Amino acid sequence: MAVRVDLNISLDGVAAPADPTPENPMGADWGRLVEDYMATRTFRARVFGDASGAGTTGIDDRYAAAYFEGIGAEVMGAAMFGLHSFPDDPDWRGWWGDEPPFRVPVIVLTHRPREPISFANGTRFEFSSEAISAAVARARDLADGADVRVGGGLSTVRAALAAGLVDRLHVAVRPVILGRGGRLWDDLPGLDTGYTVASEVAESGVVHVTFSR
Amino acid sequence: MAVRVDLNISLDGVAAPADPTPENPMGADWGRLVEDYMATRTFRARVFGDASGAGTTGIDDRYAAAYFEGIGAEVMGAAMFGLHSFPDDPDWRGWWGDEPPFRVPVIVLTHRPREPISFANGTRFEFSSEAISAAVARARDLADGADVRVGGGLSTVRAALAAGLVDRLHVAVRPVILGRGGRLWDDLPGLDTGYTVASEVAESGVVHVTFSR
Repeated sequence: MAVRVDLNISLDGVAAPADPTPENPMGADWGRLVEDYMATRTFRARVFGDASGAGTTGIDDRYAAAYFEGIGAEVMGAAMFGLHSFPDDPDWRGWWGDEPPFRVPVIVLTHRPREPISFANGTRFEFSSEAISAAVARARDLADGADVRVGGGLSTVRAALAAGLVDRLHVAVRPVILGRGGRLWDDLPGLDTGYTVASEVAESGVVHVTFSR
Repeated sequence: MAVRVDLNISLDGVAAPADPTPENPMGADWGRLVEDYMATRTFRARVFGDASGAGTTGIDDRYAAAYFEGIGAEVMGAAMFGLHSFPDDPDWRGWWGDEPPFRVPVIVLTHRPREPISFANGTRFEFSSEAISAAVARARDLADGADVRVGGGLSTVRAALAAGLVDRLHVAVRPVILGRGGRLWDDLPGLDTGYTVASEVAESGVVHVTFSR
């Protein structure tokens, strides 16, 4: 089993676009980061519930499909779940409606834990104030032999990378220069050491870079 | 004719490694940036004068060969020529010995111009305090229909990019995380706008990204 991270970043390393708002929680530049990922058939089917079969089927789609394969549990930060955008809503159930695309146990890291939320499709959000390393260890147990994803957001992923917890890091690099926002690579010198790195260019122009160990 | 830039950068966008010293003028991390470029047959022949034919001959070498093709004049900053490392040596003739690899007129930007230096192989260093845009315009004249290179260092390249002077930007992205040093992309939001971007992965793992207009 492996601990996996997948992120969409710009060529200048921005993974968290600037100026998120409750109305635009991913930031104004988000579309420029994920345009090719959201165009894939897998993303449209899995996240949008589009059963028409529309969407791209090339290299980007292969990575999108792999994203969802073999994951037995996930860890995410409070912001990714939406707790920073809606801190005072005790009934907030995440951004994803009644069918969150995870379908596995998800540990949401927050200093203000709340009751778990279960969905019919297998998604179960548990809230915990434990440290990233403890959360990943517990997710390994929950995953029962399958892989663990550290889903995001950026600060949670960077904490996992800094702690050496990540076995496979895949970044989809879109060749745009955002020039603002949170950067993935800051203050992680030598992160590549101990990993094998392989890259591949998709038909869309996105460069998929994978660090494995 | 086109104004061209070629740079070696890390995955985190570092083009100018930290802590250059007179003894190690390119910084301690330089080797990690340029290792695959320096391994090419073209670089070995053209810069080291290695006539044995040794070196790699794949995609990296194709870019290395293209680097030297079709250039009629070059513009570089004072630091790249060495004036910041040896400011008080009036006889300093650059890092490259008696056969600088340029073989064309080179405008060196400095606030303290000195007399031109000519070499038998066609390289001629001229020193000028003009602005980057004026220097590039004059280099166009000197190039006589061939391309102009803005060779470096980083601050000179960034000034040319910010001024919209560059027609073709090729970056050889080595998948290492340096985490310190001067970054190419900072404060250039939307730089990709107006360019077509194409990427290609070399056998070495270096990702070659080219912005063209």
